Amino acid sequence: MPRHLLSAGDLTRESALHILDTTERIGQAIAGREVRKLPTLRGRTVVNLFYEDSTRTRLSFEAAAKRLSADVINFSAKGSSVSKGESLKDTAWTLQAIGADAIVCRHSSSGAPHQLSGWVDGHVINAGDGTHEHPTQALIDAFTVRKHLGDVEGKRIVIVGDVIHSRVARSNVLLLSTLGAQVTLVAPPTLLPKGIESWPVTVDYDFDRALAGVDAVMMLRVQRERMGDAFFPTTREYSRQYGLDDRRRALIANHGIVMHPGPMVRGMEISPSVADGPGSVIVEQVANGVIVRMAVLYLLLSART
Amino acid sequence: MPRHLLSAGDLTRESALHILDTTERIGQAIAGREVRKLPTLRGRTVVNLFYEDSTRTRLSFEAAAKRLSADVINFSAKGSSVSKGESLKDTAWTLQAIGADAIVCRHSSSGAPHQLSGWVDGHVINAGDGTHEHPTQALIDAFTVRKHLGDVEGKRIVIVGDVIHSRVARSNVLLLSTLGAQVTLVAPPTLLPKGIESWPVTVDYDFDRALAGVDAVMMLRVQRERMGDAFFPTTREYSRQYGLDDRRRALIANHGIVMHPGPMVRGMEISPSVADGPGSVIVEQVANGVIVRMAVLYLLLSART
Amino acid sequence: MPRHLLSAGDLTRESALHILDTTERIGQAIAGREVRKLPTLRGRTVVNLFYEDSTRTRLSFEAAAKRLSADVINFSAKGSSVSKGESLKDTAWTLQAIGADAIVCRHSSSGAPHQLSGWVDGHVINAGDGTHEHPTQALIDAFTVRKHLGDVEGKRIVIVGDVIHSRVARSNVLLLSTLGAQVTLVAPPTLLPKGIESWPVTVDYDFDRALAGVDAVMMLRVQRERMGDAFFPTTREYSRQYGLDDRRRALIANHGIVMHPGPMVRGMEISPSVADGPGSVIVEQVANGVIVRMAVLYLLLSART
Repeated sequence: MPRHLLSAGDLTRESALHILDTTERIGQAIAGREVRKLPTLRGRTVVNLFYEDSTRTRLSFEAAAKRLSADVINFSAKGSSVSKGESLKDTAWTLQAIGADAIVCRHSSSGAPHQLSGWVDGHVINAGDGTHEHPTQALIDAFTVRKHLGDVEGKRIVIVGDVIHSRVARSNVLLLSTLGAQVTLVAPPTLLPKGIESWPVTVDYDFDRALAGVDAVMMLRVQRERMGDAFFPTTREYSRQYGLDDRRRALIANHGIVMHPGPMVRGMEISPSVADGPGSVIVEQVANGVIVRMAVLYLLLSART
Repeated sequence: MPRHLLSAGDLTRESALHILDTTERIGQAIAGREVRKLPTLRGRTVVNLFYEDSTRTRLSFEAAAKRLSADVINFSAKGSSVSKGESLKDTAWTLQAIGADAIVCRHSSSGAPHQLSGWVDGHVINAGDGTHEHPTQALIDAFTVRKHLGDVEGKRIVIVGDVIHSRVARSNVLLLSTLGAQVTLVAPPTLLPKGIESWPVTVDYDFDRALAGVDAVMMLRVQRERMGDAFFPTTREYSRQYGLDDRRRALIANHGIVMHPGPMVRGMEISPSVADGPGSVIVEQVANGVIVRMAVLYLLLSART
Repeated sequence: MPRHLLSAGDLTRESALHILDTTERIGQAIAGREVRKLPTLRGRTVVNLFYEDSTRTRLSFEAAAKRLSADVINFSAKGSSVSKGESLKDTAWTLQAIGADAIVCRHSSSGAPHQLSGWVDGHVINAGDGTHEHPTQALIDAFTVRKHLGDVEGKRIVIVGDVIHSRVARSNVLLLSTLGAQVTLVAPPTLLPKGIESWPVTVDYDFDRALAGVDAVMMLRVQRERMGDAFFPTTREYSRQYGLDDRRRALIANHGIVMHPGPMVRGMEISPSVADGPGSVIVEQVANGVIVRMAVLYLLLSART
């Protein structure tokens, strides 16, 4: 295991598989038990350092840490920014002072968790930084794929939509290819980042063609809040070209699954019937969040480094 | 016990009395002990889901859950609304994913806790939804009445003021009549809800007459923030007609008690001398909050359903 | 020990030394242990009541309480004010009701923690009230001085800058003189409070002269947010007259230390090279925060009163 989890790219195939296997074992250990708590991290302190709002991710990490019996300290400071570098450094000193064993950091600036990791002894987990990465979400997605398709290796996976703003897409591309999947990106050219040529993916602008027979399709949330007023030609047009509806859903393999990291904009990137229909594993992605994060916290904090 | 506590109307006389008796026993169990903690809910997770600010109710539920040794996760999201139905549903999935055993929900929209209860396996407790209900406050009030008057059955209780906006009034009317009290409402006609005829109460517009010899008078907070600019004729006029002052206080029975769910607008609906005077049990209502909520959490979560 | 810690002036020399000695012992007890938790306050409830934002202080108290195994309940209500006296009193009732054993209170109004202490049975700790006091910061500073200089007694300490707005300065002046230090204040006359003549300090307007051979220099944060538009002649001029740069740093004793309660405005009151240079104990001040607060919580809550 690396010392911090800042990028999905930090994970070798071996360490990624180790996390997924540990997640599996934790899932089995707590399944069906009324008291779903393990004593593993008793006396350790996990700080949730959230500079951006996030219901799902914060609750999920908090629950994961508490189920491992850690003490959890929440800190949220919406509106701060890394341009006030001092302030992040001052906070780092405080985190160091309180003896934080792990720091789960979400920040609107790409790279903030990396900066932080240089200032503290605790293990830093990137819980989403700007448009950069969100490695635990990629682990959740890989775990969900493996659960349903037996393995990630050799699977054909299409990631669709607002790639340029998506830290989830970046982390998934890195992790899924490390694990041997073949990843295709589908997006309007304006929503693809510069330098996409160097990513370990195929790019296809024809959604229908790209979907044919794939094992999994992963829809991204359209982050209108990060775009200007001019969005695509129109919402309707976006939906027509890049939305997942029943007709398109029928193009993927019979055993294929439909994924979305949430929260969804139903009717825009995905139709309600597909989101709630057969092969959709969206609710499971959420459900797997806690055990994946338990595995990550456990492995980082119990590693002898 | 019902599976959820969404409305005081969910409680039969039997289950309401069961809660009050359990509260009594919990109060005795922790009285005078330095460490006021019971191990009952160790390993269980209680989520405080507050879409509206509330110091008192949130602190009270958090303390109740922690005294039962549960893990508590707080979530507050002021400004959200049920009209964004998706967002509540997405949150429900997360709550489900983290294995929330109980969800204490306050929301500005009437009915939100009910909606939520359809999406999660955990037990939902309504901690105040819009102008609809606040059942644990009614249980606190009934417990306080019983403590002071021996029983709720047969007691004459007057509820006064801004009934139309009061979830406390609604829950109290339901619970107190279930428990056999005779409830009279006193309010200006503009602050009575439509359909009041079907409530199990008497309505009286003459405050003095209604007070004569009653066992308890329960003043409601005037929720000016929910009214337009035109408030009654004037504040002074409201106070004259519907405020509880020393003269009126003298009209109730000798053993009678004065109640207010807080926070009070002293000088408007109640005079300071009455609020802090003899027979006032307002501080006790607050004090009973924790043990009543301990009883509710305990009974809901230990029920085999 | 006093019942509450509202002012550094509440502490006799004996009780202050008792806190510093206890801090020392706690530091030794947890040093180098992986699980830095003591069972001392198991079952006790510590409420962090923060009416003003404060990353550092809140996290530090929360970590201190959790390391002593207390249950911690956080409450933050930025924007409230003591002019709404009722609201603080209502909150006090709730704190009383939930059985708060200790209440750590930060408030923008000087005197709020004192008011609160009249309404609750729990022990109140002033975590910063307006421009009044911040006694635990003074204890941290005294502990840091003693750690580095062996003792506080007889030491020459200069406190520099925005004294008028600084609760840290007030508490330090009181505590350091109780402990026998000789304190000199250096500040522009406009940033000295009225009545300074009665403080147990020397005032000097010549920073260079005041620094000669001192044991410690304590820089204060310039609280521009509390000043009007007209700040000093200019920022540059302030920095020139009252900023600590390398030249001035060289004037203090060889063994002398540089202190700042944080957060610093680097380049204004202190130059980056001095802040991070030799003799600077600023990071340690932060680091000592948790053990000092553990000592205070422990002593207040285990006292038989």
